[in-house]
Amino acid sequence: MTTRELTIAFDADDTLWHNETIFEAVHERYREMLSRYHDTATVDRTLFATEMRNLDRYGYGVKGFMLSAIETAIDLTEGKISTAEIRTLLTLGQDMLAHPVELLDGVAETVATLAASHRLLVITKGDLRDQERKVAKSGLSAHFRHIEIVSDKTESSYAAILRRHDIRPDAFVMIGNSLKSDILPVLALGATGIHIPYHLTWAHEHAEPPPSSAGRFHEIKSIRALPALLSEM
Amino acid sequence: MTTRELTIAFDADDTLWHNETIFEAVHERYREMLSRYHDTATVDRTLFATEMRNLDRYGYGVKGFMLSAIETAIDLTEGKISTAEIRTLLTLGQDMLAHPVELLDGVAETVATLAASHRLLVITKGDLRDQERKVAKSGLSAHFRHIEIVSDKTESSYAAILRRHDIRPDAFVMIGNSLKSDILPVLALGATGIHIPYHLTWAHEHAEPPPSSAGRFHEIKSIRALPALLSEM
Repeated sequence: MTTRELTIAFDADDTLWHNETIFEAVHERYREMLSRYHDTATVDRTLFATEMRNLDRYGYGVKGFMLSAIETAIDLTEGKISTAEIRTLLTLGQDMLAHPVELLDGVAETVATLAASHRLLVITKGDLRDQERKVAKSGLSAHFRHIEIVSDKTESSYAAILRRHDIRPDAFVMIGNSLKSDILPVLALGATGIHIPYHLTWAHEHAEPPPSSAGRFHEIKSIRALPALLSEM
Repeated sequence: MTTRELTIAFDADDTLWHNETIFEAVHERYREMLSRYHDTATVDRTLFATEMRNLDRYGYGVKGFMLSAIETAIDLTEGKISTAEIRTLLTLGQDMLAHPVELLDGVAETVATLAASHRLLVITKGDLRDQERKVAKSGLSAHFRHIEIVSDKTESSYAAILRRHDIRPDAFVMIGNSLKSDILPVLALGATGIHIPYHLTWAHEHAEPPPSSAGRFHEIKSIRALPALLSEM
């Protein structure tokens, strides 16, 4: 197997472009809005619990987050939050969906370099329309053979993608910031996972690193280190 | 080209299972909730205008509908709607996302029959998670080779699906209740469209039937008429 035969798949949010920073800015506005009623820890804990309760119905993404944020605001204030404040939450959500796509440092050059010698994919989860918008606005589309937007990133959703594109697990490398969504499921399939931590991680994405994966787990600090790592593999 | 070589794709909402009836029941509750402030026509017109304004950001589906419904309720009542009523709207949306999947008459038998001799696809738009849920709950999954959930049904989104699965337009038949989304784009590609009207149509999906399509446009009243029509083609 030559390096040329590898298929390299990238997570998108917080791997190719900033995302959690946008959520965190809205979280901060949200805590301020509810600070007359509850402390930050209670607001954060209750919002997260609402999101988890609704996850199966809403899935990932901004729209489900906004619906859960409105629900939590009404419940936490026993209905005392104003409709003007709810209207502000709706606008915050719409602004998130129109936010410029800001690539992480080194992404544009590294993706362009790797596209010259490898088949590249994007595998991301969230709202279909929003993820498509971000891919289109990223300026990176032409480098990717396929864009896969899935409702969740599990062993079976990765297995379905590998089957669909006729990719052997031992020729597949997944790159992402989430151990839980990007690394552990592909290691379980016998593929390689390269973790590039982002400085913020949503509580839902926390996971312990794998104990041992026979050389199939790597961690790097920046996407800039990727070409050298891949050439050693 | 034998009939066996045809690929037959089905729209899902209001073609395989009831959907607009569920929306209509929620619309009715919504009009009642706002009836102290505005007449039905104003409520309907304003909600539709909000949905159209938000469509590019939210895409299709229940979550975007709920966000637009909350926004419209606040705006139409100048903020006087209660947070308890907004909480009720959130619950109505969650109930829509948990609603049982009710197949249209004749669907189960017809899809099973056609699956024995044709490659069948589903091509549907809306929220990824919700559409996956409905396919899974329909009991029809095993009959379909691929499930394609797209953010919009346009000539280019159909063209991408045909390319991906190596389907020639003259061997492709699309079946659905929306002239705008299911029929006109596939006719433009040189494929065949079979329209099965549903008794309710969302205003956004209204379109005029095609003037002439060289025998590639058909309309039937029930999916039960599909096998006979296909065998004549």
